[in-house]
Amino acid sequence: MTAMSGIALIQGASRGIGLQFCKTLLQRNPATTVIATCRNPNSAQDLVQLKDSNPANLHICKLDVTKEEEIVGVSKFVTDSFGRLDLLINCAGMLHPSGKGETSLRSVDEQGLLSTIHTNAVGPLVMAKMLSPLLLNGQGQFGVTPSDSGSAHCGIIANMSAKVGSITDNGLGGWYSYRMSKAALNMATKNLSIELGRGRRKVICVSLHPGTVDTDLSRPYHKNVPNLFTTEYSVNSLLQVIDSLTVEDSGKFFTYDRTELPY
Amino acid sequence: MTAMSGIALIQGASRGIGLQFCKTLLQRNPATTVIATCRNPNSAQDLVQLKDSNPANLHICKLDVTKEEEIVGVSKFVTDSFGRLDLLINCAGMLHPSGKGETSLRSVDEQGLLSTIHTNAVGPLVMAKMLSPLLLNGQGQFGVTPSDSGSAHCGIIANMSAKVGSITDNGLGGWYSYRMSKAALNMATKNLSIELGRGRRKVICVSLHPGTVDTDLSRPYHKNVPNLFTTEYSVNSLLQVIDSLTVEDSGKFFTYDRTELPY
Repeated sequence: MTAMSGIALIQGASRGIGLQFCKTLLQRNPATTVIATCRNPNSAQDLVQLKDSNPANLHICKLDVTKEEEIVGVSKFVTDSFGRLDLLINCAGMLHPSGKGETSLRSVDEQGLLSTIHTNAVGPLVMAKMLSPLLLNGQGQFGVTPSDSGSAHCGIIANMSAKVGSITDNGLGGWYSYRMSKAALNMATKNLSIELGRGRRKVICVSLHPGTVDTDLSRPYHKNVPNLFTTEYSVNSLLQVIDSLTVEDSGKFFTYDRTELPY
Repeated sequence: MTAMSGIALIQGASRGIGLQFCKTLLQRNPATTVIATCRNPNSAQDLVQLKDSNPANLHICKLDVTKEEEIVGVSKFVTDSFGRLDLLINCAGMLHPSGKGETSLRSVDEQGLLSTIHTNAVGPLVMAKMLSPLLLNGQGQFGVTPSDSGSAHCGIIANMSAKVGSITDNGLGGWYSYRMSKAALNMATKNLSIELGRGRRKVICVSLHPGTVDTDLSRPYHKNVPNLFTTEYSVNSLLQVIDSLTVEDSGKFFTYDRTELPY
């Protein structure tokens, strides 16, 4: 762990896994700078409370990931304030606008598919586009410190995906919007790993599966989950995975315990 | 080949691979009923010409696959006219609204992603939703005639995907919108295969890669393709794959020569 003075942007930080990433990153190293984005900073009480304890190092930015112009605004803020970024974690996600994944075709509808894919896949890619110049200018403060023998990296993009986004692994069906959005996001990860892995300066890009975590997103399904993780446990595990990343891992899809998942 | 009196719906039939599916299906067996959909029947000259030679068996329906209400309308037409469907081929596809796939993040934009995903993935899934009751009522006139030992199927959904939609196989990157849309479509195929494979009556669902075919979609890239297929060759090959399908193949991703692709 070399996060001496890392700069991380957590997209979707008002609650759940995103909020926990902010908390844990600041706990691990109070010198870390965290840019936390959420749709409505005014109603993000937990995040505002975290800001009270970390006034200098936590920056809250309003961002709806489905609004390209707001992504441009956040990118400008990071450029003007820091001029670089070491880690981007795309966290914001939804199962479906209704709050429940489709159990069958009967509940599939065009608008539900489109808005889920917009938030879960299109938004994160536009984030990656706008922030990639800053990540390519990063100091590689997260992930394995490159040795003389290994290739260096300057930044990391971690897209919060989900095991149910694996087409190969899909044995149960259902959750059309969520599964399709995460498959599209996984393709974005793979494409980003190729484009941002070409030059001398490289950004590691991975998809991560956090396990089933005690968050609002999964709440309707908690009673069926034998192994429900706390956000602390999931985020600690995910940060261990991020700490372990090298450029050879770019383009891969890892679980919280670093098992590689098929696409 | 047992297409004695099969009923097939070709979505996206004004040109390219979709138009060729209509031609070849009617040539192979003039008793086949083909429902051909396209956005603007009035300007679909080749399709209208085909209708002149097949006035009784070719039905042209106006359908923009991004308009849910038009999908409902076509579904009602098929219900009222035939009461069943044996084969649905989702053909309509676009590289990107600009006509060119993104070569880098610089050309990625929110609206291009959304409309490509709408046409290539969301539309085909809504088609499958609306037509699945008719396919579940099909007579299995395409695919391998079930033997006593095998499981029966009553219909087939073939989604025209593309090898570049394989996340695992992606080695070149670029074409963000098209690749993400096809990955999402492949997930739809897998999900459909599970939901429509559960009951006594089953619909086989596959994703198909047509090769690089001499169509308007691929025109900007023809000079780089050593093995450009004619639409006739591609569609003949794809129909051979469709003719060979059994319920055990459902959920898979096949090339024109029946090679299975990873997701």
